[in-house]
Amino acid sequence: MVKVGIIGVGTVGTSVAQILKDNADVISARAGVEIVVKCGVVKDLGKDRGLDINLSDNINDVLDDDEIDIVVELMGGVEEAFEVVKRALSSGKAVVTANKALLAYHRYELQDMAKDIAFEYEASVAGGIPIINALRDGLSANHIESIMGIMNGTSNYMLTEMRDEGVSYDAILKEAQDLGYAEADPTFDIGGYDAAHKLLILASIAYGIDAKPEDILIEGIENISQEDIAFAKEFGYVIKLLGIAKKDANEVELRVHACLINEEEMIAKIDGVMNAISVVGDKVGETLYYGPGAGGDATASAVIANIIDIARSGKSAPMLGFDKPLEGRLTLKATADINSKYYLRINVSDRTGVLAKLAKIFEKHNISIETMLQRPSQANSANLLISTHIALERDIQNMIEEIQELDFVNAAPVMIRIV
Amino acid sequence: MVKVGIIGVGTVGTSVAQILKDNADVISARAGVEIVVKCGVVKDLGKDRGLDINLSDNINDVLDDDEIDIVVELMGGVEEAFEVVKRALSSGKAVVTANKALLAYHRYELQDMAKDIAFEYEASVAGGIPIINALRDGLSANHIESIMGIMNGTSNYMLTEMRDEGVSYDAILKEAQDLGYAEADPTFDIGGYDAAHKLLILASIAYGIDAKPEDILIEGIENISQEDIAFAKEFGYVIKLLGIAKKDANEVELRVHACLINEEEMIAKIDGVMNAISVVGDKVGETLYYGPGAGGDATASAVIANIIDIARSGKSAPMLGFDKPLEGRLTLKATADINSKYYLRINVSDRTGVLAKLAKIFEKHNISIETMLQRPSQANSANLLISTHIALERDIQNMIEEIQELDFVNAAPVMIRIV
Ligand SMILES: NC(=O)c1ccc[n+]([C@@H]2O[C@H](COP(=O)([O-])OP(=O)(O)OC[C@H]3O[C@@H](n4cnc5c(N)ncnc54)[C@H](OP(=O)(O)O)[C@@H]3O)[C@@H](O)[C@H]2O)c1
Ligand SMILES: NC(=O)c1ccc[n+]([C@@H]2O[C@H](COP(=O)([O-])OP(=O)(O)OC[C@H]3O[C@@H](n4cnc5c(N)ncnc54)[C@H](OP(=O)(O)O)[C@@H]3O)[C@@H](O)[C@H]2O)c1
Repeated sequence: MVKVGIIGVGTVGTSVAQILKDNADVISARAGVEIVVKCGVVKDLGKDRGLDINLSDNINDVLDDDEIDIVVELMGGVEEAFEVVKRALSSGKAVVTANKALLAYHRYELQDMAKDIAFEYEASVAGGIPIINALRDGLSANHIESIMGIMNGTSNYMLTEMRDEGVSYDAILKEAQDLGYAEADPTFDIGGYDAAHKLLILASIAYGIDAKPEDILIEGIENISQEDIAFAKEFGYVIKLLGIAKKDANEVELRVHACLINEEEMIAKIDGVMNAISVVGDKVGETLYYGPGAGGDATASAVIANIIDIARSGKSAPMLGFDKPLEGRLTLKATADINSKYYLRINVSDRTGVLAKLAKIFEKHNISIETMLQRPSQANSANLLISTHIALERDIQNMIEEIQELDFVNAAPVMIRIV
Repeated sequence: MVKVGIIGVGTVGTSVAQILKDNADVISARAGVEIVVKCGVVKDLGKDRGLDINLSDNINDVLDDDEIDIVVELMGGVEEAFEVVKRALSSGKAVVTANKALLAYHRYELQDMAKDIAFEYEASVAGGIPIINALRDGLSANHIESIMGIMNGTSNYMLTEMRDEGVSYDAILKEAQDLGYAEADPTFDIGGYDAAHKLLILASIAYGIDAKPEDILIEGIENISQEDIAFAKEFGYVIKLLGIAKKDANEVELRVHACLINEEEMIAKIDGVMNAISVVGDKVGETLYYGPGAGGDATASAVIANIIDIARSGKSAPMLGFDKPLEGRLTLKATADINSKYYLRINVSDRTGVLAKLAKIFEKHNISIETMLQRPSQANSANLLISTHIALERDIQNMIEEIQELDFVNAAPVMIRIV
């Protein structure tokens, strides 16, 4: 019998306890042993959670219990959770967590501490999709060339609805909040931070590269409008918020932002709240993993898979997938050095000479235009919708800075990278 | 250092040896040890394979070598390969194979023999996609409700091209053969047998159910025509060759056949030679795995992932994913008891009274028609394209038998199940 303590019995923790009971038949057949929850820890003992497990409001009831083999951390947050899992590891307990924020900041310290003991975190990226498993074990023969993922269901839901229903950003945000897909403060999801946490975890497994959220390019979907979506449709693109990790010689790009992506790509076909992650390996080519990125039961499915793994065989792989330094020469690419094609929406006053002036500025910054559309906007103004050939992020940023100062430009230009 | 012997250095074996060399940096970083090929076994020592490994034409040079830790079986075939892997296991060597035919017939005997030693077979299903990993480890908390997969790239390529280019079945088969996607004798791929082998492997992991290819419904794509594709398009369907495993109360359906499938489903969006497998778990919902189902390097990627797993931790999970009997009460559903919607193409002489007579026969067999189209065919004949509501396989088969005897019916009706 394997005994589990669950620290945090909220959305995910409740599902974990419930599924361990509901599916005990297949779970014990697969694990080879029975798995039981000895104790769950919460803040508020007064809440009814509809579970028949022992509850406590004292973390020590799990951490100090020698009979508990596996600590399941589902309380969330960064530093307090870090203290909890460190204590668990140092007393020889295996740890399973779904906490992406914890890993975005402390995964290398945890990898060092968990040399001989299992520390698993499948649910931290893309909820129910076993992507950690795939990347760390299934694709281990490959140098990873790129990872490109829809890692945030809230944003993908909003972008899908904006495209299919033609509704505005503000209307769809309200709807997502009403449906429970978006939090009251949606910044973490739609600002790209949630996806960035997940991307950093995947990039560690793929490249062994260390970076924190502060080190990488993170943008959200707040500026996307119906004009951009119409432009995308016209030119065979779809707009998605992607987390991207890409190897380029000895550097790795890590970035989260909205993208125009060819509608024929598999990742472009992923709609609604679903997540999907495409991985290109040098030998296997592209594989893609699709499924629910959140929700109590889907996330608990991944948490329990980790528990079963540990019950079966203890530690079966290094936490981040490597023992020796992995592709040691790789460094994080500076954001300014990223190459991309770009789409720009520039709102200009409708006067003669505007186009000529803009064209000159583009040329000055080494940016060559691929397509341009002019669409009437408010009275006396127009939107210029422009896509460029491949250019350097530094040049685009400098150009945008210059453009937004021009007297005939009415608002900061909106830029979306084209993948 | 882990020493490997490769029995069969053909398409996949050559890629395995080459990648172990090309990607030795990441492979040893991930495995924690160096992995070297000590010996490869072939039939014809005269062929140049462009590899710098020791070759032999004597299987005993691998099987009797005490220094070899892992035997990689890539020779193909069933009984001879079975003897080889049994000998390897009984001398304490771990085994990795890509041989789906071997597993379709002998997986339960192998599971019994490999209780304490690793026997891995990731590459046997869907080539480079780590689907065994996902199903056996990633989804282990779930009762599996269904598995539905495009498991044969040749058939999917042909169906995709027939739809997109409007070419005939015979023309596209020739093209697939010229491109090397189809064998000179394509029966194994387009007749559904290859997919059936893979389906049986997945069904064992999901349900613990034992069946051989002979026990299940296997049909191919040989009868699909442009008329069927046009009908599918008109009603929002795509035609795919699917392997399907589905739990229905205490029974499991296992079947491989062409399907009409709603074009909005993810699995309907998989085109060309690519494979994809959709799995529905009772807790996680749908997850889907997409990638290359064949090819030397893609398949070798999965073979090496297994080698790395074994180098890391020996045996990390039961071969088929369970120790105790898994969902022990489940039995194979008889083909005649399958429920489905059906599509029928019936070529009839163009005379009065035909429809009325057919309608009567449908009614007699309890089959109710959902839509019907009549399309002119050759002079004085017409194709009736009919979709039904849900009906019983037994009834449909009886009805088809009766219909093909009618004097105004010009050929055996074509039937495609609707999923
Ligand atoms: N929800 C998802 O779909 C999802 C998906 C992927 C990953 N995750 C991750 O899973 C983790 C849990 O998410 P959740 O949605 O389940 O969160 P939640 O519903 O807010 O649950 C958090 C639980 O932790 C307890 N808790 C918090 N601080 C505590 C403390 N100091 N001492 C004792 N108990 C404490 C809470 O107790 P009370 O109930 O008494 O307040 C609650 O039971 C987070 O790291 C999240 O990022 C969630
Ligand atoms: N090719 C793919 O894309 C793919 C994908 C998934 C799974 N698989 C599976 O992988 C396995 C290998 O496929 P493959 O395409 O690599 O086959 P292959 O190219 O025909 O290679 C077979 C190899 O085995 C050797 N061999 C056969 N019988 C032998 C014997 N009795 N003694 C010694 N050597 C023997 C052959 O030697 P010679 O070279 O001297 O003839 C050859 O090197 C099969 O089980 C197949 O189903 C293949």
